[in-house]
Amino acid sequence: MSVPIGPARASVIGTGLIGGSIGLALRAQGWHVTGTDADPSSEARALELGAIDAVGLDPDAAVTFVAAPVRAIAAEARRALAATTGAVTDVGSVKAPVVAAIDHPRFVGGHPMAGSEQLGVDGASPDLFEGAVWVLTPVAGTDSDRFATVASVVRGLGAEVVALSPERHDALVAVVSHVPHLTAAALMGIADERAEEHAALLRLAAGGFRDMTRIAAGTPTIWPDICSENRDAILEVIDRLGDELGRLRAMVADHDRERLLATLERAQVARRNLPSRVAQPGDVAELRVPVPDREGALAEVTTLAAELGVNIADLEIAHSSEGDRGVLILLVPTTGAEAFRAGLVDRGYRPAVRTLT
Amino acid sequence: MSVPIGPARASVIGTGLIGGSIGLALRAQGWHVTGTDADPSSEARALELGAIDAVGLDPDAAVTFVAAPVRAIAAEARRALAATTGAVTDVGSVKAPVVAAIDHPRFVGGHPMAGSEQLGVDGASPDLFEGAVWVLTPVAGTDSDRFATVASVVRGLGAEVVALSPERHDALVAVVSHVPHLTAAALMGIADERAEEHAALLRLAAGGFRDMTRIAAGTPTIWPDICSENRDAILEVIDRLGDELGRLRAMVADHDRERLLATLERAQVARRNLPSRVAQPGDVAELRVPVPDREGALAEVTTLAAELGVNIADLEIAHSSEGDRGVLILLVPTTGAEAFRAGLVDRGYRPAVRTLT
Repeated sequence: MSVPIGPARASVIGTGLIGGSIGLALRAQGWHVTGTDADPSSEARALELGAIDAVGLDPDAAVTFVAAPVRAIAAEARRALAATTGAVTDVGSVKAPVVAAIDHPRFVGGHPMAGSEQLGVDGASPDLFEGAVWVLTPVAGTDSDRFATVASVVRGLGAEVVALSPERHDALVAVVSHVPHLTAAALMGIADERAEEHAALLRLAAGGFRDMTRIAAGTPTIWPDICSENRDAILEVIDRLGDELGRLRAMVADHDRERLLATLERAQVARRNLPSRVAQPGDVAELRVPVPDREGALAEVTTLAAELGVNIADLEIAHSSEGDRGVLILLVPTTGAEAFRAGLVDRGYRPAVRTLT
Repeated sequence: MSVPIGPARASVIGTGLIGGSIGLALRAQGWHVTGTDADPSSEARALELGAIDAVGLDPDAAVTFVAAPVRAIAAEARRALAATTGAVTDVGSVKAPVVAAIDHPRFVGGHPMAGSEQLGVDGASPDLFEGAVWVLTPVAGTDSDRFATVASVVRGLGAEVVALSPERHDALVAVVSHVPHLTAAALMGIADERAEEHAALLRLAAGGFRDMTRIAAGTPTIWPDICSENRDAILEVIDRLGDELGRLRAMVADHDRERLLATLERAQVARRNLPSRVAQPGDVAELRVPVPDREGALAEVTTLAAELGVNIADLEIAHSSEGDRGVLILLVPTTGAEAFRAGLVDRGYRPAVRTLT
C-alpha cells in the first residue's frame, strides 16, 4: 500500500520553535510553506532561516498549522478556517477547550509531544518531530478526509500519530507533562529556599536532581495558560500525587522496608518498560473497516486503537460513490491486529483483516 | 604550593561500581590497591578488570574506602580500623548514624555524589568522579592529618571536596536526592496505574517525563536502608514538598496566573543557576589558619567554607613541634576569600590571607 502523496501547500500561524520546525521539515520535502506571526521580526527571521517561503496565509493550503500560544489558538484557527478550504490543526498543550470552542469539521486538534520549551525560530529544526508522538484529537464531527490529510502530513514529519479524544488527551498529559512540570518547579523551589541558608546545598545536586528539575528551566510563560485551561485534570493528578507521597511517607515513617521496596520495584519495572520513542513496527496487518453512515466513526475507530495501545502505521479513506459512506483502511502491527479487530467488532463494526507480507 | 603527593597503598571494601571505580582510578595513578567483597565472584571480576592488584585488606593502606551497602558500613569500617593504621572512609548515602556509630579519629565519613545506581564492577570507570562533588563529614574528633589525606586522595580522583557536618549532609541530601527519588517513583507509579487503563498514556511520555523519572529506573534495593537511616530528614522534606504542591494546587484552582508565573519564574532562575559540576576556580587565595589547641577546629573551618559556598581547592596541615598545635593552610578562590576570612574571625580564628599570583 502506498503512502499518500501529500499536497504541496501549507501555512503555519506562529513561526516560533514548533511552527518554524514544521516549515523547515515540509520545505525540505518540497512543500511551499507560508507563515505569519504576531511578531513581524519572527516572520522576517523565519524567512531568513528558510522556514517559510513567504509571509502570509495561503488560501490553497492543504493544512494550516496553528502554532500560537494556547490562549490565541481558537481565534487564529477561526481566521485560518475562514481564509482557506483545507484542514486546520493546532499544536497546543490542552485540547478539549480549544476543540469545543472551534467546533468545525475541518479543524483537527493536535499536540506534538516534542519541543515544549518555546525558544523561537532560531531553535527550529526539521528533525524536531522525528520519532516523537503527535496526538490528534478527532471528534464526532471531524471530517475524515481532513483528518487523514493531517495524519499523513504529521507522519511525513517523522512523528507517530496517536488519536485520542480531546478529554482523554487532557487527562493523560496532566499525568505525563503538566503535574511533572509543577513538581519539578516545587522540588527546585524547595532546594532553592534551603540553598539561601546553606550555600553548599546546590553543589550536592548530582545527575538525578538535575534530570528531575530540567524541565523547570523551560519558559514559564506558557504554564499559566496551560494550568488554567486544564485545571480540573491537573488538580486531580496533584491530589493523586499527594496521596502517593503520603503513602510513601507512611512507609518511611514506619520503617516499612518491604512495602517501600515493593513500591520502588514496581516503579523501576514501569520506568524500564517505558515505550521507546521510535516505534518500529515489524509485520503489519491491514484492517478495512466499512463505515456506512455512522457519525463519529473515524474518531471512534482511531481513538480505540490508541486505547488498546495499537499504533496506527498508516490510515486512508476509500470513498464510495455515495459520498459519506466509505471504508477506513488502517495499517497496524500484526501483534495488535487481533485485539483491535475484536474491539471493533464489540462496537458493531465489521472489519476485514489481512496480513501484509 | 605543591599538591601533596599521595601515599602509594590503598584498599577498597566492596568492589562494585564505586569501589571498582576508585580502584581503577588509583591504580592508573600508580597506587597499589587491594580489595575485598562479600561476593567472591565480584573480587575475582575486580582483579580481572584491573580494579585491584590483589584480594585482601592492606595493613599499610594510607586510605581504606568502605564501599559497602549502608547497613554494613559500620561493621566493615571497624574491621578496617582494626586491620590498618591509616585513614578509613566510606561512600554511603547517609552519614550521621554511621559517623556516630563508628566514632573514631581515623574515620572520615564520605559520600561521592556520583554513580548512585549500583551496577557492579563491570560498570566501573576511572573517570566516574571527574567533576563530581564528594562530601566529607569531619567531626570534632576527626584527626586532621587523616582528613587531609582523604581529601587529597579524593581530589586526585577528580572530585571536588565539600566538607559538611554529618547532620547537615543528611538534611541536604534528603532535599537533592532522597525525596526526589521517592517523588520520581511516585510519578512513575501514577503514570503506570493509569497506563493499565489507558494504553496510550505511556506513549505520550516525552523527554520531560523521561528525565523526571529516570532515577526511578535505578536499583531499588539500596533505598529501604537509606530511608530508614535518614528517616527524619526525609519526612521533613516530604512534608515540605506536600506544602509546596498544596500551594501550587491552590494557584491552579484559583486561576491565579500571576502567582503561578512568579513561582515558576523563580524555579526557572534557580534551575538555570545550578552550579556547573566542574568547578574551575580562577585566582586563588591562601588562608593560613592557626589552630592552637582547639577541639574540632578542622571540622569547624572546613564546614564553614561549605556553608559559605566557598570551594576549598586544596588543604594542608602544617604541624608545629608541639604536636596538636598547627596551621591549616587552605586554598580558596579569591572571590570567596574575604567572606571566608570574615566568618573565621567571627568564630575566633586569626587567619592570614594572601592572594597567589
